[in-house]
Amino acid sequence: MRIEIWSDVVCPWCYIGKRRLEEALAGFEHRDQVEVVWRSFQLDPSAPTVPTENVADMIGRKYGGGPDAARQMMSQVQQVASEVGLDFTRHADGLHLNTVDAHRLLHAAGDRRGDLKEAMLNAYFVEARNLADHDVLTELAVSVGLDADEARAVLSSDAHRAEVDADAAQAQAYGATGVPFFVVDATYGVSGAQPTEVFAQLLDQAWAARSPLTMVSAGAAPGCDGDECAI
Amino acid sequence: MRIEIWSDVVCPWCYIGKRRLEEALAGFEHRDQVEVVWRSFQLDPSAPTVPTENVADMIGRKYGGGPDAARQMMSQVQQVASEVGLDFTRHADGLHLNTVDAHRLLHAAGDRRGDLKEAMLNAYFVEARNLADHDVLTELAVSVGLDADEARAVLSSDAHRAEVDADAAQAQAYGATGVPFFVVDATYGVSGAQPTEVFAQLLDQAWAARSPLTMVSAGAAPGCDGDECAI
Repeated sequence: MRIEIWSDVVCPWCYIGKRRLEEALAGFEHRDQVEVVWRSFQLDPSAPTVPTENVADMIGRKYGGGPDAARQMMSQVQQVASEVGLDFTRHADGLHLNTVDAHRLLHAAGDRRGDLKEAMLNAYFVEARNLADHDVLTELAVSVGLDADEARAVLSSDAHRAEVDADAAQAQAYGATGVPFFVVDATYGVSGAQPTEVFAQLLDQAWAARSPLTMVSAGAAPGCDGDECAI
Repeated sequence: MRIEIWSDVVCPWCYIGKRRLEEALAGFEHRDQVEVVWRSFQLDPSAPTVPTENVADMIGRKYGGGPDAARQMMSQVQQVASEVGLDFTRHADGLHLNTVDAHRLLHAAGDRRGDLKEAMLNAYFVEARNLADHDVLTELAVSVGLDADEARAVLSSDAHRAEVDADAAQAQAYGATGVPFFVVDATYGVSGAQPTEVFAQLLDQAWAARSPLTMVSAGAAPGCDGDECAI
């Protein structure tokens, strides 16, 4: 069973939703047969690659009320985060930044993608680090076992942009306008950081709906089984 | 739409089936939305990592009749291969070998996996090269843009064995006893190197059966859409 998750590395509900899904997975009998695939979603593709203000200032300016009102609002998300064991105390100090390079690097991470995703979310929300900075991104890549030179090569090129764009197109095809957005076996969806129980229901429902393969064929066809290859 | 293909790099019908699927894909309107995922399948896990005989000798010995009879039999596959543009003239000179290291390397290849798969099949069937030899495998990895040192590190360790085993378990769960074995969106299957028309039918049928997501939820849940994150 495959869970695809569209999310952004600067999306607080994506991190909270990740924890709730992980809780549901921990209690799911068939968790060994579940593959998680992280998909890219840029909440704000126009955000600067060289950040100029923090999230509290940006939100305070954009919606009026100033940074204090923004911090007040964000403290409510901070409370919810603490309930799943996440410390968002420094979230408001995080920078408003462009995440395309972070997403390109995630696509270059192979089987470390999940680890790198977690490292990025922790770096941004818990440590208020700059995820548009190539030195920071390289350090995070190395922390999950990737090669520093390869990470730098990816970051200094435009590598994996096509995968980021393809993920965005697929999200749009599914009708996702925001994140996190969860899809199991291209069939069942969940939008938003739903309670853990909803993720448990998603897993159960999708598992129960799995059916044997429908074989499409016009009869037998040659193949190999051990040393024996049909002629 | 995702096509998973279980195959072995020493399976002649896997290479022929690959070409037929590629033909069908070339004529498929939605080919840009098709992702191909190569899965590992070892036809003979007991085959030697240091090969001692070629395929013709092995088959001739195992089934009686000797190498000449084996070569006669293999010439029929050679004929079918030529019909899809593959030159299997040297196939009978290929070595009977263990493919676990080739499969581990494929799992380490990230987005080059498809290119490496093709390079391995060509090396084995067209060039009769030894796919159990780490120097050969490293050379093939480099030919598709992978790093030589990383390839060697994978080959000299036991890295990615778990993925190879997981693929085998999934094939078994699907009831596949031989390869090639094709599965679309975990729903539709094709066994063997079917004619191109059958692959076209597989693509059409699976595409037509795609349906909108079934949303599993107990109502709205917080998420982010652009700068706006629900509280």
